[in-house]
Amino acid sequence: MLGNTYPGQDCSAARTLELVGERWTLLILRDALFRHYVRYSQFSASLGIATNILAKRLEGLVAAGIMDARSTGGHADHREYHLTERGQEMKPIIMALTEWGDKWLGPGPVLFHDQADGSPVAVRICRLPDGLAVTPSDVIARRRPPVQS
Amino acid sequence: MLGNTYPGQDCSAARTLELVGERWTLLILRDALFRHYVRYSQFSASLGIATNILAKRLEGLVAAGIMDARSTGGHADHREYHLTERGQEMKPIIMALTEWGDKWLGPGPVLFHDQADGSPVAVRICRLPDGLAVTPSDVIARRRPPVQS
Repeated sequence: MLGNTYPGQDCSAARTLELVGERWTLLILRDALFRHYVRYSQFSASLGIATNILAKRLEGLVAAGIMDARSTGGHADHREYHLTERGQEMKPIIMALTEWGDKWLGPGPVLFHDQADGSPVAVRICRLPDGLAVTPSDVIARRRPPVQS
Repeated sequence: MLGNTYPGQDCSAARTLELVGERWTLLILRDALFRHYVRYSQFSASLGIATNILAKRLEGLVAAGIMDARSTGGHADHREYHLTERGQEMKPIIMALTEWGDKWLGPGPVLFHDQADGSPVAVRICRLPDGLAVTPSDVIARRRPPVQS
């Protein structure tokens, strides 16, 4: 990959992809979010990617404030990678990718549940503030009004 | 980029990323979904990427069944790229990326609305079937039970 910026793109989706759009990064987040992996060896065993790539991606996530690196003492390489709050909030992105794949490419190996009572959960587009579901085809994007000074 | 497959990853998110995870592809989908672009020249002016990359990405989306290429007659290069139903259903993915960026990187230029009445809309994680919102930290992934024969 020649770079991971999207110059000239004034867009929040593009800016998010600048942080997490590189190959493997979203799968590292999947493992952190839903398998609760924190150690280099866990990500490495799960993803099977070159060690230099994995190290670079993890450090990129730390630099982006999505993960927090913690030393666990002992060997110099004993670092753990924990999701920050902004990392935790990437769950809907991974879920939306998963649900699309489940529907259009065939059911995958996992289902999402509410840990409180085990109810199945899914990503939906909702009206604010009443929470009514809106079908994707009814959603339009409009320019955000300028902030009044 | 050395490849766009994720071998060994039995995961719907990984399979979706095999189709749309290459650099620029999700921004092409953003333009198709929310700006209703269909022509090569529209994507090219919006994204400013090398023509060979853009052509490759559009043909990749056609091969994946996410877009449909239609000849508009006239010159041989007059093709339009229209989202299929499976393409339309990528909206929650783009919205989730946008909302995360709006929140954590600063407000972007667009807001999402219900075209029926202009209400703001957002991606939420909801319990099925009652639609109650669930916070991301309460969502867990579990292995899908085997299908009974």
